[in-house]
Amino acid sequence: MIVIKIGGGKDLNIDAVVEDIVALRGAGVGLLLVHGGAETTNEVAEALGHPPEFVTSESGYVSRRTDRRTLEIFEMVYCGQLNKMWVEQLQTRGINAVGLSGLDGRIFEGARKDKLRVRINGKRMVLRDDWTGTVERVNADLLRLLLDAGYLPVLTPPGASDAGEAINVDGDRAAAMVAAAFNAEALVILSNVPGLLRNFPDESSLIAEIPKARADDFMQFAEGRMKKKVMGAVEAINEGVEKVIFADGRVDAPIRTALSGGGTQIV
Amino acid sequence: MIVIKIGGGKDLNIDAVVEDIVALRGAGVGLLLVHGGAETTNEVAEALGHPPEFVTSESGYVSRRTDRRTLEIFEMVYCGQLNKMWVEQLQTRGINAVGLSGLDGRIFEGARKDKLRVRINGKRMVLRDDWTGTVERVNADLLRLLLDAGYLPVLTPPGASDAGEAINVDGDRAAAMVAAAFNAEALVILSNVPGLLRNFPDESSLIAEIPKARADDFMQFAEGRMKKKVMGAVEAINEGVEKVIFADGRVDAPIRTALSGGGTQIV
Repeated sequence: MIVIKIGGGKDLNIDAVVEDIVALRGAGVGLLLVHGGAETTNEVAEALGHPPEFVTSESGYVSRRTDRRTLEIFEMVYCGQLNKMWVEQLQTRGINAVGLSGLDGRIFEGARKDKLRVRINGKRMVLRDDWTGTVERVNADLLRLLLDAGYLPVLTPPGASDAGEAINVDGDRAAAMVAAAFNAEALVILSNVPGLLRNFPDESSLIAEIPKARADDFMQFAEGRMKKKVMGAVEAINEGVEKVIFADGRVDAPIRTALSGGGTQIV
Repeated sequence: MIVIKIGGGKDLNIDAVVEDIVALRGAGVGLLLVHGGAETTNEVAEALGHPPEFVTSESGYVSRRTDRRTLEIFEMVYCGQLNKMWVEQLQTRGINAVGLSGLDGRIFEGARKDKLRVRINGKRMVLRDDWTGTVERVNADLLRLLLDAGYLPVLTPPGASDAGEAINVDGDRAAAMVAAAFNAEALVILSNVPGLLRNFPDESSLIAEIPKARADDFMQFAEGRMKKKVMGAVEAINEGVEKVIFADGRVDAPIRTALSGGGTQIV
């Protein structure tokens, strides 16, 4: 099983991703797809008059302030616009895709953070009307049911809280949990950078390989959203995923390039 | 099996619908839910600067002009905002709901109308950049797979064209096709009217019962969107559904009221 996480950036090469999925499925490779949608969510939130806000947790992670209206817009973009775009792209090329959020069948399940301790412009605050959480369990049974019947699950946040509420969960971390649940051979994380960069944003400073045991040390090179990606990678590795690859989603054959040694390989 | 179609009107009693579903599932009744979203789609389309347009077919049916951008907004509302709202409502009350569009796994499949002959302000036109179609087949295997594993499928347009493109399909007709595929005991169509009215919009003129054999004659009383509902009902009956009920979705216990004789019963 190979789990592919594709970000929501506008410069990703969607056709090339779909072509790779068709080729890999055709060659009998087991696949699961998880996608994001942050960039489009920002645009739609602006257009609907509810602009995005970001908060920084006490441990330094940046996340989206997710009040009830933001959660609704988030669902519109991730589960509506983008999930169905991926499903349509795959369906028109003969792959029987089934798009699901992590809320459906509680595929991504975990605790809601009912009090979120954050810093906004350096000031400490506790947010209560916030709908975020962390994926702790994956409903692999439902995914297996679909895979065994020949469908390709196309997954996206939100997830489900223990109480069944929709929660904004990190897509990279969700993909890492899916990869762990399947003891995947590889988790391929495609975004709009070539991989982990020693000197962000200098793309020539790509770190080509990181030994598993030293993944934690490389956290120092992760900037912004890349922090969560590396954290997810470390978790996936610790839970038995054989390798995690950060690779470029803007190029031709992005998945096959990653699987044949491109990007940053954590092995 | 009972198939419930719930419209997208803002005055529908969502809590009461969910409560009925919980009670019926608790009593061991097999259920499938199909929902709409036309009213919210109109609002979001306005807010996003792409206001809704409606066209009238040569046979007199009114439908949404669905260009590519409208299709995207349609998916945002039906598959994102509203489908996940229903799934969350059900999940928080202990029902393991799985929200799917008719595009996913080609649950609602049929031909795309690549040339749509319509009248706009009385003038005849042929629309080509339009993404609408008609549900001709239901992927009952996928629905059975989920039902047998204990999930409640929550379905919504769009559907899939034969080529796998997303197409705007009528939700009532889709629900009728689902009911037919399962030889359902009943198809309950909830909307913001008490049923079929002899003198629309006079709610006291409710037609309480229509014998199956005479359903076609009652088409004369159907106004606007109700036309497609009655057409769907006639199709469902012809394909072996035992009864179709048009009932009020604004009241307490709307499904149980319908099943115990409320609304317009086509029997």
